[in-house]
Amino acid sequence: MPVYGRFLINNLSQYAEIEGDTAHFIGNLFESPQRTGQSAPVADLKILSPVAPSKLFAIGLNYVDHAKESGKPVPEVPLMWFKAPSAIIAQGEAVEVAYPEHRTDYEGELTIVIGKRCKGASEANATSYIFGYTIGQDISDRDIQNSESQWARAKSFDTYAPLGPFIYTDIDPADLPVETRLNGEVRQQSSTKQLVFSPAQLIAFLSESITLEPGDCIMTGTPFGVGPVKAGDTIETRIGSMQPLITPVRGRS
Amino acid sequence: MPVYGRFLINNLSQYAEIEGDTAHFIGNLFESPQRTGQSAPVADLKILSPVAPSKLFAIGLNYVDHAKESGKPVPEVPLMWFKAPSAIIAQGEAVEVAYPEHRTDYEGELTIVIGKRCKGASEANATSYIFGYTIGQDISDRDIQNSESQWARAKSFDTYAPLGPFIYTDIDPADLPVETRLNGEVRQQSSTKQLVFSPAQLIAFLSESITLEPGDCIMTGTPFGVGPVKAGDTIETRIGSMQPLITPVRGRS
Repeated sequence: MPVYGRFLINNLSQYAEIEGDTAHFIGNLFESPQRTGQSAPVADLKILSPVAPSKLFAIGLNYVDHAKESGKPVPEVPLMWFKAPSAIIAQGEAVEVAYPEHRTDYEGELTIVIGKRCKGASEANATSYIFGYTIGQDISDRDIQNSESQWARAKSFDTYAPLGPFIYTDIDPADLPVETRLNGEVRQQSSTKQLVFSPAQLIAFLSESITLEPGDCIMTGTPFGVGPVKAGDTIETRIGSMQPLITPVRGRS
Repeated sequence: MPVYGRFLINNLSQYAEIEGDTAHFIGNLFESPQRTGQSAPVADLKILSPVAPSKLFAIGLNYVDHAKESGKPVPEVPLMWFKAPSAIIAQGEAVEVAYPEHRTDYEGELTIVIGKRCKGASEANATSYIFGYTIGQDISDRDIQNSESQWARAKSFDTYAPLGPFIYTDIDPADLPVETRLNGEVRQQSSTKQLVFSPAQLIAFLSESITLEPGDCIMTGTPFGVGPVKAGDTIETRIGSMQPLITPVRGRS
């Protein structure tokens, strides 16, 4: 069950397979990754986001309980938009609140990483296009989201897409615990079995008319319990046995 | 007043400065482009979309007359979403209608190409981040757009973002004629002086919290006169003195 990460080495991004505390460097992630023979302790490395996607899909209202708390009906087809790839930050980097006078929310989300170019997948073969899973946080400026009909801007500010730390290739998304803690206190606690649309259904739906590329990510939506953050907070999302995504929050730099 | 294009040479993309009918190849487009000394007739080359943006911003209801025909109020702040970069096609490629049973519309749009990394631009210095302009067509599945609250999917199907053919660096966007013809018949005829938010205002607004990268594109919205297309049609958008973007429409391949 390989686990992969991306690291900054001599100002270049380098993929590695992670075994215990060690990063074994590899070549291309998506085409039969091979170890180069070089390795380093993960603790000594600067972690990058596990992928640099050309498309960062976000899915809305995909947990029944969260749709209810938002006062919105569960969608009949998956509700999608794009977050800007430039919003992505890695483990160890901080969300910088763009507008402290606005309500800015955490949303912890299971995130699919696509491994193969994909168009017209069926629900039955959709999982063959999944490289693995990681954790995402769909940070949302709720004031702007509520005042603009399109949500893309409110969710695309720089640093508003923490992603990682790593990609896990051996995850069964059927019934994973999804938990987000704010400053150590559990705020979201659910399971992916409450997903309205499963990863396979999302891939089949999206790829019907949009080509998915290797590295593209699909943030699958957030469960009940979203809430605001402020500078000084720490957001921690735990999904299944993946290493948690821990994101400090600070003011705009 | 250099004009730039991107071409497919030996399976690689290569930028060129276009002078008359000749493409003079250059290195990097965004950092002081230099001619390599090699050239070829444009007519002999396969044209690629003039850029491969990491973000393809779209702006909605940015002409007063189009907001009116859509039955929607003119927005108080620019209304933005993202189109998928995978939807982009070049001059000479065809829009493939994903769902012929749906109404699928053309929308001709002046498109900004960003030249320099940009965060927190002011309206006064925003134009210094503009590399040039090109033409975009924001092809839209109106049935899906009207049935889903988020517009990104309806406007991101493969081939739904014709872009090009070239980038023009010496364009004054203050009062450019914008015209779209369907099968030779004029359907949209307006001027950029009717833009609600100017290119400089859009860049200042977007870059307030989102970093713009070299090559990112902003489609500035479409004027009055949108309408449906079907397989066999040809969409032609003319803006100022730029070479027109001509897009055939066909069925799904």
